[in-house]
Amino acid sequence: MTSRRGHPAGPTGPVVSRALALLDLFTVATPQHTVSQLSRLSGLPLSTTHRLVAVLNQWGALERGADGRYRIGLRLWELGSLAPRGQGLRELALPYLEDLSQITRENVQLAVREGTELIFVERIAGSGAVPVLTRVGGRFALTATGVGLSLLAHAPDEIQTAVLDSRIERFTPRTVTDPLRLRRMLADVRRDGYAVSDRQVTLDAISVAAPVENGRGEVVAAVSLVVRHGTATVQSLAPLVRTSARAISRTLASSS
Amino acid sequence: MTSRRGHPAGPTGPVVSRALALLDLFTVATPQHTVSQLSRLSGLPLSTTHRLVAVLNQWGALERGADGRYRIGLRLWELGSLAPRGQGLRELALPYLEDLSQITRENVQLAVREGTELIFVERIAGSGAVPVLTRVGGRFALTATGVGLSLLAHAPDEIQTAVLDSRIERFTPRTVTDPLRLRRMLADVRRDGYAVSDRQVTLDAISVAAPVENGRGEVVAAVSLVVRHGTATVQSLAPLVRTSARAISRTLASSS
Repeated sequence: MTSRRGHPAGPTGPVVSRALALLDLFTVATPQHTVSQLSRLSGLPLSTTHRLVAVLNQWGALERGADGRYRIGLRLWELGSLAPRGQGLRELALPYLEDLSQITRENVQLAVREGTELIFVERIAGSGAVPVLTRVGGRFALTATGVGLSLLAHAPDEIQTAVLDSRIERFTPRTVTDPLRLRRMLADVRRDGYAVSDRQVTLDAISVAAPVENGRGEVVAAVSLVVRHGTATVQSLAPLVRTSARAISRTLASSS
Repeated sequence: MTSRRGHPAGPTGPVVSRALALLDLFTVATPQHTVSQLSRLSGLPLSTTHRLVAVLNQWGALERGADGRYRIGLRLWELGSLAPRGQGLRELALPYLEDLSQITRENVQLAVREGTELIFVERIAGSGAVPVLTRVGGRFALTATGVGLSLLAHAPDEIQTAVLDSRIERFTPRTVTDPLRLRRMLADVRRDGYAVSDRQVTLDAISVAAPVENGRGEVVAAVSLVVRHGTATVQSLAPLVRTSARAISRTLASSS
């Protein structure tokens, strides 16, 4: 399978890849497109784009609005709800996240790693908590947030190297962008069992995160509390987050 | 577009359709498959299945587990979260659904119509409420539940006819399966502005539902309360559900 995964062979690969590449053009920033836009952005001829969009629309991956533009269809959402690392994890973790939210009244986040980035699987906004700009289904860098550092610390070596060798985005003056310093932080995360992002994403917030493991001891997600800087200590938050992460891990292990 | 939608033309159509048909084999009941199973279930040659699975896996529509089986991938969940009728509607409606849940302590559901069925977009289980077996992303018949009757009452004529001409599933002795009686019920739903399912799904529950409209006055979803039979009157529930549905409609209209 490995060679095929890298280079899908045969005539089937390219056509399907083209259809999937059309879907890739739908993002949070650009959630709707006309066929002409899709053709221009993909570089595919208009006639090919028309045919592929027709197939995707018929199946339900795309839906045509009253304005003639296409959007991601409900069928894709329905199918996506079967992803164990998305909706499956979310539903399993939700009771624990809600407990954490109700006890602390702070923001609670759950994220998984996808390649060299993270995707937020759930967020519960605390009543009166510091505003957090994350979105369920949204992506973020692994290097800045508590959940990101937690996931990166337990990622395979090649992922850590790929992330630390790339440009590391700066969000605030306190964002750590020095690869060596990040490597030391990741070692601390593994030793301590939790990760701290101290005003590295916004200057008014800190987050404390802990890893969620599956039944084979692999880190598959991370859970965090995000609180306003100065209102709570890491020492008070870390045990809460770690306890919650362990409870989710336990449920995950017994469900698989 | 219409003719193309029905019969995607050209050599691109069939290959992409085959890949999409492989994805269709993943369901709530069968969320994981080996390549051999996919080949057998789809009727595609093993080599073709291997190639298509490789492309889908590489893109992230499928993910290979430690057991060698494939599951729906996180990328599909991520992309699905862009569906306006799924996650988009859910996030917009959630504050109102939570209000309804906290005020009544009963089950709250939000559903949309997909063809001749409904899909649950959100459900909030009431604390101590009657158990409800719905699942976010799950499908159900339009003829039995409150949300289903509400959606069917406002569906195009051809959908109503298709549903009423098909076999109508019976869930309890009280499920209405007579097409003529259902037609009269749908007329009542349109007249009253709400739908009632009285022990038609389970013998211990009734649901009251109201339609959610978009800015063009089209019914795009339905919201319901599901309560234990005998604990509340339709007359007390209907105004609550209708008020909530209107609030969601208003937000929907102003967001589009």
